[in-house]
Amino acid sequence: MSVTIKDIAKLLNVSHTTVSRSLNDSPLISKKTKEKVKETAKKYNYRPNVSARSLVLSKSYNIGLFFSTLRTGTTANFFLDSVRGVNQIIKGRYNLGVKAIDILEDFESINSRNFDGIMVMSQSPNDDEFIAHVIGEDIPLVVLNREVTGQKVTTVLSDDLTGAYNITKLMIDQGHKHLAIIEGKPEFRTTYKRKQGFINAHLEAGIEFNEDFAVAGKYDIESGYEAMQKILGMKELPTAVFCSNDEMALGAMKAIKQKNMLMPDEISIAGFDDMRFTAYLTPALTTVLRPVEEMSKEGAQILLQKIENVETEVIGIINLDTKLVIRDSVKKIN
Amino acid sequence: MSVTIKDIAKLLNVSHTTVSRSLNDSPLISKKTKEKVKETAKKYNYRPNVSARSLVLSKSYNIGLFFSTLRTGTTANFFLDSVRGVNQIIKGRYNLGVKAIDILEDFESINSRNFDGIMVMSQSPNDDEFIAHVIGEDIPLVVLNREVTGQKVTTVLSDDLTGAYNITKLMIDQGHKHLAIIEGKPEFRTTYKRKQGFINAHLEAGIEFNEDFAVAGKYDIESGYEAMQKILGMKELPTAVFCSNDEMALGAMKAIKQKNMLMPDEISIAGFDDMRFTAYLTPALTTVLRPVEEMSKEGAQILLQKIENVETEVIGIINLDTKLVIRDSVKKIN
Repeated sequence: MSVTIKDIAKLLNVSHTTVSRSLNDSPLISKKTKEKVKETAKKYNYRPNVSARSLVLSKSYNIGLFFSTLRTGTTANFFLDSVRGVNQIIKGRYNLGVKAIDILEDFESINSRNFDGIMVMSQSPNDDEFIAHVIGEDIPLVVLNREVTGQKVTTVLSDDLTGAYNITKLMIDQGHKHLAIIEGKPEFRTTYKRKQGFINAHLEAGIEFNEDFAVAGKYDIESGYEAMQKILGMKELPTAVFCSNDEMALGAMKAIKQKNMLMPDEISIAGFDDMRFTAYLTPALTTVLRPVEEMSKEGAQILLQKIENVETEVIGIINLDTKLVIRDSVKKIN
Repeated sequence: MSVTIKDIAKLLNVSHTTVSRSLNDSPLISKKTKEKVKETAKKYNYRPNVSARSLVLSKSYNIGLFFSTLRTGTTANFFLDSVRGVNQIIKGRYNLGVKAIDILEDFESINSRNFDGIMVMSQSPNDDEFIAHVIGEDIPLVVLNREVTGQKVTTVLSDDLTGAYNITKLMIDQGHKHLAIIEGKPEFRTTYKRKQGFINAHLEAGIEFNEDFAVAGKYDIESGYEAMQKILGMKELPTAVFCSNDEMALGAMKAIKQKNMLMPDEISIAGFDDMRFTAYLTPALTTVLRPVEEMSKEGAQILLQKIENVETEVIGIINLDTKLVIRDSVKKIN
């Protein structure tokens, strides 16, 4: 008789999930716990139990990673971090297929013969039809980045609402009372979350939020530039601008520089995502780190557990923390 | 009897290749020709001839797009443009698997059962073993971005040498005689090509190239920043710096700003790639447009032709043109 995950869990007095995550190197488990689990697994000669299902059923060894779109709104860094995260987990075990949902002509090829599992890096409710199809085909599924309503789906999110709240609170704490927001692509769920966090910080501080200071963007550099031009053309200017992502912040900063306004002395600016380039802007951008790679890794681990039946527990929503990254683009005012 | 590509070619007095490329919407064919070919194809009721081979052999409907690495050196924009380009061509017909060669544990799963065709976005000679394996397995193959020596491989390149030559010549024509270069990742072929173009422009203008002004980089922002710090610490400064890609130019510009030097008044700077952000830097970056998406589309078209036996002609090396993008970061001096 060989040792099982259940046995290891009992021995260490932790849950199955903790053991299975540790063996799969999940970022959600502390290094210490992982080491303990791995040691115990080694000591008792644990071998992963390839389930009857995967032995009997023919496998395609394909995992699909679907994005809402690869056209506008999906930034290059987000895309690379996502693919890199998933590939780090599935390594050589599966072939990772990367596709955009919005260019699929139909869902005919999306079936369990072609895919052992599917991950949707979902940015928009337009994906819901696709997600429903995947569920209908009984393909193991994990949705990343967006909550799906009306369907029971395992979801890994980044807590953008709290992230946007935190960075707005930072600006308010620095004395800013007139804050503008450049919003993301209208149909993207993150757009709504980040705006809500921005508003919540106003509510909590008892500062009125000026609806005129909410300007639409599309998550790309150009739209940030144009939105900032619109803001700079207003009669009364905000003292700080929260850009719903870093690319738009880059565009916004260009518009400010062209007006020969000083950052952060005359206007403060903040972003979201913590893309690599933000530290190299002048001024270096204060922003919110979004754990895209971690989200993808976590999602891939859960998907593998679903495919390989290692994980028995149904997992609901996992919400990963964002982190405030304070640099030089927000100034204290009186 | 139905009409063939050969018939259409004869009718229009063009080559097979032109017809097949036109039907596949190749960017290499003019809009006018494409329209003429498509009209004729429609008129004579042309239907693509699915070859005996693909009818008989079982297909996996997987195409693999392999990068040398997804860790350092592969920029996010390069990655997104590549995947987007290939996906635009293969659409729903095939599943596009995206992987990094440097994390493959072995090549066991790289066989014709798993892949109908493979594209290698090759950055380094380290890929040669992988490429040789793919050839050995008789999988239809197209290599992008790098010439493979010693193997007969269909290759789609961007003419980086001429691009680097052109931008260096531009700086020399603006009066610069002391030019530095921040080089790319040492093992990448593009690094060598861009440096060679830089040197060729010196040779042609009869300007001596100062070897001390060649500083190593790694194609990422950080290495551009560090290389520029090194340059700014030299006794005699160059009047212009060619950064072998835009990300390094961004890092370099940060180092210059931290030294409170004026760009382009005190030092001119140029990049390579024409990434989206370059127009939004201050000063806007003069750079070289590299047709990554076009390269990927062209490669995908050729691969489909190989897989589907539409194309009979053996295609060798296709070299796509780069384009000089003149903005504000290079100044005329006396």
